[in-house]
Amino acid sequence: MGCDYNPEQWPPSVWREDVTLMREAGVGFVTLGVFSWALLQPEPDRYDFGWFDEVLELLHEGGIAVDMATATAAPPPWLTNAHPEMLPVDAEGRTLWPGSRQSWCPSSPVFREHAVALVEQMALRYGSHPAVRLWHVSNELGCHIGKCWCDVSAAAFRRWLSNRYGSIDALNDAWGTAFWSQHYRSFEEVLPPRITPAVPNPTHELDFARFSSDELLDFYRAERDVLRRLTPDIAVTTNLMVSSHQSEQDYFSWAPELDLIAQDHYLDARLPHPRAEQSFTDDLTRGVASGAPWLLMESSTSAVNWQPVNVAKRPGELLLDSLRHVARGADGIGFFQWRASQAGGEKFHSALVPHAGRDSERFREVVGLGEALRRIGEVAGSPVEADVALLFDWNSWWASDLSSHPSTELRYVDAVHQWHRAVTELGATADVVHPESDLSGYRLVIVPTLYLSSDATAASLDAYVRGGGQLLVTYFSGIVDESDHIRLGGYPGAFRELLGVRAEEFAPLLPGTTVTLDDGSTADLWTEVLTAPDAEVVARYTDGPLPGTPALTRRAVGDGVAWYLATRLDDAATAALADRLTRDAGVTRLAGAEPGVELVRRGRYLFVLNRGNGPVKVPAHGCDLLTGANVEGTVDVQAGGAAVVREEGS
Amino acid sequence: MGCDYNPEQWPPSVWREDVTLMREAGVGFVTLGVFSWALLQPEPDRYDFGWFDEVLELLHEGGIAVDMATATAAPPPWLTNAHPEMLPVDAEGRTLWPGSRQSWCPSSPVFREHAVALVEQMALRYGSHPAVRLWHVSNELGCHIGKCWCDVSAAAFRRWLSNRYGSIDALNDAWGTAFWSQHYRSFEEVLPPRITPAVPNPTHELDFARFSSDELLDFYRAERDVLRRLTPDIAVTTNLMVSSHQSEQDYFSWAPELDLIAQDHYLDARLPHPRAEQSFTDDLTRGVASGAPWLLMESSTSAVNWQPVNVAKRPGELLLDSLRHVARGADGIGFFQWRASQAGGEKFHSALVPHAGRDSERFREVVGLGEALRRIGEVAGSPVEADVALLFDWNSWWASDLSSHPSTELRYVDAVHQWHRAVTELGATADVVHPESDLSGYRLVIVPTLYLSSDATAASLDAYVRGGGQLLVTYFSGIVDESDHIRLGGYPGAFRELLGVRAEEFAPLLPGTTVTLDDGSTADLWTEVLTAPDAEVVARYTDGPLPGTPALTRRAVGDGVAWYLATRLDDAATAALADRLTRDAGVTRLAGAEPGVELVRRGRYLFVLNRGNGPVKVPAHGCDLLTGANVEGTVDVQAGGAAVVREEGS
Amino acid sequence: MGCDYNPEQWPPSVWREDVTLMREAGVGFVTLGVFSWALLQPEPDRYDFGWFDEVLELLHEGGIAVDMATATAAPPPWLTNAHPEMLPVDAEGRTLWPGSRQSWCPSSPVFREHAVALVEQMALRYGSHPAVRLWHVSNELGCHIGKCWCDVSAAAFRRWLSNRYGSIDALNDAWGTAFWSQHYRSFEEVLPPRITPAVPNPTHELDFARFSSDELLDFYRAERDVLRRLTPDIAVTTNLMVSSHQSEQDYFSWAPELDLIAQDHYLDARLPHPRAEQSFTDDLTRGVASGAPWLLMESSTSAVNWQPVNVAKRPGELLLDSLRHVARGADGIGFFQWRASQAGGEKFHSALVPHAGRDSERFREVVGLGEALRRIGEVAGSPVEADVALLFDWNSWWASDLSSHPSTELRYVDAVHQWHRAVTELGATADVVHPESDLSGYRLVIVPTLYLSSDATAASLDAYVRGGGQLLVTYFSGIVDESDHIRLGGYPGAFRELLGVRAEEFAPLLPGTTVTLDDGSTADLWTEVLTAPDAEVVARYTDGPLPGTPALTRRAVGDGVAWYLATRLDDAATAALADRLTRDAGVTRLAGAEPGVELVRRGRYLFVLNRGNGPVKVPAHGCDLLTGANVEGTVDVQAGGAAVVREEGS
Repeated sequence: MGCDYNPEQWPPSVWREDVTLMREAGVGFVTLGVFSWALLQPEPDRYDFGWFDEVLELLHEGGIAVDMATATAAPPPWLTNAHPEMLPVDAEGRTLWPGSRQSWCPSSPVFREHAVALVEQMALRYGSHPAVRLWHVSNELGCHIGKCWCDVSAAAFRRWLSNRYGSIDALNDAWGTAFWSQHYRSFEEVLPPRITPAVPNPTHELDFARFSSDELLDFYRAERDVLRRLTPDIAVTTNLMVSSHQSEQDYFSWAPELDLIAQDHYLDARLPHPRAEQSFTDDLTRGVASGAPWLLMESSTSAVNWQPVNVAKRPGELLLDSLRHVARGADGIGFFQWRASQAGGEKFHSALVPHAGRDSERFREVVGLGEALRRIGEVAGSPVEADVALLFDWNSWWASDLSSHPSTELRYVDAVHQWHRAVTELGATADVVHPESDLSGYRLVIVPTLYLSSDATAASLDAYVRGGGQLLVTYFSGIVDESDHIRLGGYPGAFRELLGVRAEEFAPLLPGTTVTLDDGSTADLWTEVLTAPDAEVVARYTDGPLPGTPALTRRAVGDGVAWYLATRLDDAATAALADRLTRDAGVTRLAGAEPGVELVRRGRYLFVLNRGNGPVKVPAHGCDLLTGANVEGTVDVQAGGAAVVREEGS
Repeated sequence: MGCDYNPEQWPPSVWREDVTLMREAGVGFVTLGVFSWALLQPEPDRYDFGWFDEVLELLHEGGIAVDMATATAAPPPWLTNAHPEMLPVDAEGRTLWPGSRQSWCPSSPVFREHAVALVEQMALRYGSHPAVRLWHVSNELGCHIGKCWCDVSAAAFRRWLSNRYGSIDALNDAWGTAFWSQHYRSFEEVLPPRITPAVPNPTHELDFARFSSDELLDFYRAERDVLRRLTPDIAVTTNLMVSSHQSEQDYFSWAPELDLIAQDHYLDARLPHPRAEQSFTDDLTRGVASGAPWLLMESSTSAVNWQPVNVAKRPGELLLDSLRHVARGADGIGFFQWRASQAGGEKFHSALVPHAGRDSERFREVVGLGEALRRIGEVAGSPVEADVALLFDWNSWWASDLSSHPSTELRYVDAVHQWHRAVTELGATADVVHPESDLSGYRLVIVPTLYLSSDATAASLDAYVRGGGQLLVTYFSGIVDESDHIRLGGYPGAFRELLGVRAEEFAPLLPGTTVTLDDGSTADLWTEVLTAPDAEVVARYTDGPLPGTPALTRRAVGDGVAWYLATRLDDAATAALADRLTRDAGVTRLAGAEPGVELVRRGRYLFVLNRGNGPVKVPAHGCDLLTGANVEGTVDVQAGGAAVVREEGS
Repeated sequence: MGCDYNPEQWPPSVWREDVTLMREAGVGFVTLGVFSWALLQPEPDRYDFGWFDEVLELLHEGGIAVDMATATAAPPPWLTNAHPEMLPVDAEGRTLWPGSRQSWCPSSPVFREHAVALVEQMALRYGSHPAVRLWHVSNELGCHIGKCWCDVSAAAFRRWLSNRYGSIDALNDAWGTAFWSQHYRSFEEVLPPRITPAVPNPTHELDFARFSSDELLDFYRAERDVLRRLTPDIAVTTNLMVSSHQSEQDYFSWAPELDLIAQDHYLDARLPHPRAEQSFTDDLTRGVASGAPWLLMESSTSAVNWQPVNVAKRPGELLLDSLRHVARGADGIGFFQWRASQAGGEKFHSALVPHAGRDSERFREVVGLGEALRRIGEVAGSPVEADVALLFDWNSWWASDLSSHPSTELRYVDAVHQWHRAVTELGATADVVHPESDLSGYRLVIVPTLYLSSDATAASLDAYVRGGGQLLVTYFSGIVDESDHIRLGGYPGAFRELLGVRAEEFAPLLPGTTVTLDDGSTADLWTEVLTAPDAEVVARYTDGPLPGTPALTRRAVGDGVAWYLATRLDDAATAALADRLTRDAGVTRLAGAEPGVELVRRGRYLFVLNRGNGPVKVPAHGCDLLTGANVEGTVDVQAGGAAVVREEGS
């Protein structure tokens, strides 16, 4: 267990008490210095490390490991005042001013120069300190400024495009500039996609999204390279923001640059199923980590402060939510932040030590969590067992979100979440992986609404099915290539042959409209003018705009089977189809799972998380690490409770 | 039948196939070159017409006539980069950048100079080509940039004001600048109505709307004049955007400058009655054309791409929707576009050849439509028969939309649509005409919510009624003069005497509130503190804020009758009142009409369009041109079907 | 009775009729010249007072007193054109242009110089005119531009901060700049809180709100000082905007600078209880006036023009609404404006003379109101009798509205209105006063959701309760100090000891969610993880996130009692609690009050305002001034009627 520690918010007298309480709570590591720039470098030509040395020494004496931030997340006022050209500018041309955090353009050479200089100072001073175990580059890169439209960014975008395309003719082809008279004579003519009178060029926007992700990654690399050079033995990471409300970084492309995948996660009460989103995000983070264990760098002990209504965690939820992360591959659980701020924009964000202080239920729960995590420490390193793969792609997300599509009601992450939740509630576990991943080990592959697909993905899925795999592709998949060009001849172009179907048109449904299938299912959002020249029709619409038209098809190919679903089923019908598919495919389903009761296996450890309203009995043999009790045949878990059973043969 | 043709989006190998398929489909004309500027003039000082010549030749060989665009709709990047001062600026001061289309300020001299130069080239090169039958200036002028607030526009606005008012005193009087200390000393002090701290001066805004319409028209004229000079024998047009979601051009003032009225129309699924809006727009386009046949330049074969949910056309709808245009005066049906784009911002807009290709139901429907249009070819030139006039005015629309009015819930076009639909559903046909039109030929004139009215309109209506006409004026009409000055002494000032009523105050209703009339009608939105000193009270409120107050009045004047309706009736009550008015006035109502079954007569041709759920029988004698069948007594039209009967006496 | 008079909107021929009609209506004073700058000073170096002299003379001859405006509210175009640097700029960097009113930055030295020069001219010319009884500085200061983010304002903000804090270290401490690396080296580095990438620093924003209020007040003082110097015998005021939709001025700090408190009030149909808001605002205005009589400078005779739907007043409402102001302390009733404008942005705002003219029900009601106000003239100067105090603070409002709080559903004014209405409907009268007011005279003090509280407030409430007072504090009170720093150790920090409770966390409820208390009450919005270590628990939750947790507590302290309510009760439960509290405290409740029937006592005068659906009988003895009838035992007031009884012993 760990947390962000921001000692500059408190007088030194509090620091010693902090270390004592950290030990009481079982805090094993802290992330230090994330927002300390202004105090570490109070003047352009003066550093002040003394106070920071003292804090580090106190932590070290307390046996607390340090994830050392490079402290560059928020530039001090002296820097932004001296260089207003480093401030970010939005698509409308508005400067985003200092007075908050992250007031810097990712492409700014001035900012990068100052940041890298500070990183060098940090590495030189702290790289050999025994408490420092990990470097933490910047913070939540892109959380607030994932894109910048300023003139400096424009120049960087042109360089990026020149590297990507080589010639302006290639760019003209890729962007389809023959449309609307947008033909460029040279890269020098290209601008970022600022506000325009009508619809912008979608490939222009898509490439700007790619550029923006790459540009921030490049900034990460600049800091990382300093650290690698000066402290080659310390791992380097940064806290990714794999989540449903931030799409701007393609973490599959970031992952190879991190020595350890770290992730921040906050439950979002605005979603219909916040915990299902957590499970999905955890599975995706594991996908980003290529299946390796990862670190939850930040989460909250209770409410956050940035949602419209910031729901507090009820008793027991802190433990359950933390174990969910562990069950899905986290080997460490961190929080923002140690002590709730007394001032500033995040003072109503919960912490390990709340405003009420040590004498509080929240701190007692934190102590309990520390104890629980110690008890299950042996789980670390065990692989999560999953035989379903769910394909996910940030490029396709970006492309799906572009304007002028058939329906603005279609949201990529909703489609992915729905299928992830259906599989999870059946007791199966899914890896959420890049479309071009090796799929050979999976019994079932689900491809929800993968609008943009490469030829390689199409070939990989073809091979997977022919090799005996079970595949489900859903509506509005395989429509365009990497340049957002339609794959002609009928939808879903990339997968048409494999699935044996052909759609001639999309027929999205108006909000509030539903259709019925002849198996009794209800669906909404989307239908397609579909024919099934080479597939079995499993279900057809009985009403709506396309009565009699195929909605669900199935094709045996090679040793496998390829399904196509051309509409959005409601939750019950999705569950029923997931049930059939997992049975057909022989997917492992842990007995006892149901909506509210989540079961996951990491190696020999079975996690049972019961958010339901009543107790559950789950078949297991071994020892419940949380209680130390023997488990013989079944483990009983009360409502709101959990078990982590080291299984020892039935 | 015709369509936009954008050959630059496809390799030359496709062009020949295009012409072949066009012939198969019955495409008689194409609009060519709308977005070709960047490829026709790839450098400031270099034109490249070779590829275009080839396309034109292929079309000509295929017997396809060409509506030749001037190609100036979207400037190439080299022009916008060289002259950023030509970019439009919105009321908030934000520049609208290139990367889309129409990135030009209507008042920009630089842009106009370049555009006119290209038009000259086009006219010189193609003006004598036998395939070229029509010039198409720019494209959908004002669709995205109807107004610009930049400094160049500000200077143009001042010139326009100086022309309009002659002296600054006249402007001060018209704008009422004594209010809020806005008195100007000279035209030089006037700015466009950019964002302000509080409510802007409404007459300032109204004049800016007039200026903006005139300024774009002036741009049209600049191109048109080149064409007239160089190719005096070829008619010139541009595709107007007569619709419910674009109000910025006063097409009654544009019409005299066009040799042929052309119009784009797209069904809008966001409206409660999309087809009724089509009928209204068609009738208005005919009004703009002073009753002459017009050309539908663009429509869609199925879904568009710019609505939140883009509904596809069901089988048969393409034919029915196209016939609706013809029934209401279109002599040609065009579409955007020939082949669905593979890339760019409109790739999900339907086309004659969809992504699925020639082998598709959509293309087969297109072929069927081409055949149907050929069969009814003899209809061309026949006049639509209408004896109801519905007064409509863009100036009044602009003035109605100004802020600080009694109710933001009142929307002018909704009021007009409601009365147009009521009349249409009774089997009557309305011309939608300018308020100062000659009304003598109509049996019934309806004036829905004509907030701004000239003295001439008031005099015209007075004469119309005295001459025996039946008139209905509805709430919030005749309130202000052309300067948006209240006509004092009681509402509706312009028509108070004619109607014999006097309202002292408006009493708009809160959303969700309704009132009841003593004839059982339900109404909402609006009531007035009305007295009827010189009119019969037909109905009074029984509840709401004004129980006992007149809601509907009737006054016999000269040989005619003048009705006033002071509230918004619901659909049923509107239909009932329309029924009474049309009967009283002896309006022709085609038997068989009802909601869903639309009947219109063009000369000797009776159009029956059945969107209802069951078959209809409509009295007719003659020949159904669509089927060639004889019609004796009645024509039977199935649900979703149509008939076009050449009538030959009953 | 009085009104704004804008004669420049009408030709001189109308002026004489105006004075005649004013006398008929009983207009006793007019506010003159508010928007006359452009005509009084038509050129930078030329004044034109002739026409104004004439108007003033006519009014004087008619016996009408003049509240003389300084005429600086809206600068003429020649000034804004010559000095665009005086235009306001918003937080996004957008200039707000002329063409409306109030186009000036409050910190602009250029504007101030010109305004002060005009004030000097006005004072010299009119200061000795016998009709001039009051000076009216500018108009509705801050109504449209309460804040400006331009560079001139930035410099002024820095000066203000330097005055407030003395040293930059003190600012760093107050703003908590250790958070997010915001440490400043000097005041020169500080900017206004313009748009930022993430959450801004809340104390930065709070101080900018304080600065903005002070800056406008400073502008007022600049004009006031000229008037004091040149016309020391004429009182100076300006029309405040104490209301629910404008929060930007702290009128408690403004009040000492005004010789007479004047206020504008308009009913707002968007609120659930518009008249209850009026009563609240009147009571607050009286609080601003420290209990002294005040002047209603503007209200409307019927509809306004700036709400989405502008509801007209029904017959009788004008009288009732006006008497409500008088009942709550107004000694004069003014209106905007004399004659409804024929042009401009406010032409649909009602007036004393409507567009329909003198022959109208509205004007007849105005005449009746003038007569009624004359009849109750003796009420003037009588003090409103109130023994409940409701604490209110603009600083706390500003702080409550900052972002990143537990729930955006919590709105300070809603919380205050709810409690004010509950007390009012019981027949009690509340003074709405500053938290640091002398509370010793009140039987009950209510502190709704006072998020920001000073130590002085805490001490004052403690003394009040120990001295025998009854106190109710509601949820989310006493959370932070004046720097928006959390008071640590448990909520509500400022009042924790006094109330004997301690909250460890907030648990706000999602919209649509309710909780039940064990006394049957329903509540929503907010709950707290509360313990009552030193208080009696009166009610607990039976469901929701915190079953069994205290919701309402009571603690006897010294001779008094302190209640704490940790949730938002619905209206019925609020009424029940208000009933208990007022009974316990012995609060005076006027018999006959109920929802819809409002009773207030000013000295010996009892006001009965019946907005209910039936007649009421209210105990009283004396004379009804409105009718002259004797009242013996009870006064009967019909639905929609009123009585003002001079009581003479029962």
